[in-house]
Amino acid sequence: MLPPARLALVLALAAALLVLRPPAPSAARPIVADKPAPSEATATARWLAAHNTWGVLSTISSDLNGAPFGNVVSYSDGVPGEGHGIPYFYLTTLDPTARDALEDERTSFTLSEFPLGTCGNIDPENPTCAKLTLTGKLKLVDLQSSEAELAKSALFSKHPEMKDWPKNHHFKIFKLEIENIFLIDWFGGPKPISPSQYLEFGRNQHSVVSS
Amino acid sequence: MLPPARLALVLALAAALLVLRPPAPSAARPIVADKPAPSEATATARWLAAHNTWGVLSTISSDLNGAPFGNVVSYSDGVPGEGHGIPYFYLTTLDPTARDALEDERTSFTLSEFPLGTCGNIDPENPTCAKLTLTGKLKLVDLQSSEAELAKSALFSKHPEMKDWPKNHHFKIFKLEIENIFLIDWFGGPKPISPSQYLEFGRNQHSVVSS
Repeated sequence: MLPPARLALVLALAAALLVLRPPAPSAARPIVADKPAPSEATATARWLAAHNTWGVLSTISSDLNGAPFGNVVSYSDGVPGEGHGIPYFYLTTLDPTARDALEDERTSFTLSEFPLGTCGNIDPENPTCAKLTLTGKLKLVDLQSSEAELAKSALFSKHPEMKDWPKNHHFKIFKLEIENIFLIDWFGGPKPISPSQYLEFGRNQHSVVSS
Repeated sequence: MLPPARLALVLALAAALLVLRPPAPSAARPIVADKPAPSEATATARWLAAHNTWGVLSTISSDLNGAPFGNVVSYSDGVPGEGHGIPYFYLTTLDPTARDALEDERTSFTLSEFPLGTCGNIDPENPTCAKLTLTGKLKLVDLQSSEAELAKSALFSKHPEMKDWPKNHHFKIFKLEIENIFLIDWFGGPKPISPSQYLEFGRNQHSVVSS
């Protein structure tokens, strides 16, 4: 047995260590520390796609006479640790976004660095808090294809509740075929990144590690 | 002087109290607990507008031949504690969103409950994690008007760094004139809310308390 004075001192030190320990990251708010440097534009774009779990899909609204319509959606570009850059979605035509895309494929998908927690006290609109807009065509993925199996693994591993969503809502898998990339990650305007640069990034390296 | 054993015990108790104290909320990630009930659709829409600080503005892209283009922007609907529901923005025509809106005013603005931290472990696409899309026209606010003064107070109080943004970027104040409201805050599809219901909410009560 430790004498009471020594015991109290040990308790004090243990408690102090607990105080100094950083708080455990919450599952809903991952702390992502490995942001690429601003000079690494393609890496930054792929990092944003790999680490976020939701974004805004914008379509041409058929309900609103062709106005743009942004909707909050979940997505995945791969199973954790193996992001490939293509965002896959799990959408139902009960929702206007999927209906719009089936009439007019033109779509953009927008992500912010801000919810990842790495912008600190920088304003979400500040150019150093990165933003990514992927514009292209939202396409249905054939549910019988091998791509659909990969997309399901990608989606269900990051969004486990999706696999239990109501069968009678007829969720379908969509993917964005990327035609244009708009990335702001520093001062000086958007960085030029081609879809092939974006999609081929990391093919000869390890995949982008995603959350 | 306390004897060493007593001093160590006091230190242990003080440290234990620090351990038990919940972590202070970060300015960038406010913890917002007063979400209205799902039956209170208009209150929920105004709560989302009052508590978020950024969202996605979607325009018809002139650079991309009329494709929808979503962009991450900061906004404010009033000084903290006095949200009025109309989102104001501080945008430069160096950025495509402002240029698009000056050519075609049709715009939507999309907000998610997810970054507020009140969805817990619910998926961002789950209908109980609320989403708001305000669609209408993005209008320039005359910088000489009294509305511009109100808008500046609203924006600069929630986004203090804006007032130091480069003068030669010619930032202008825009507002969304709301024509359509799309709110999902529960199962069963979007809630019908008219722009006047939304804008008049709380006029005879205290304003919606915003972060």
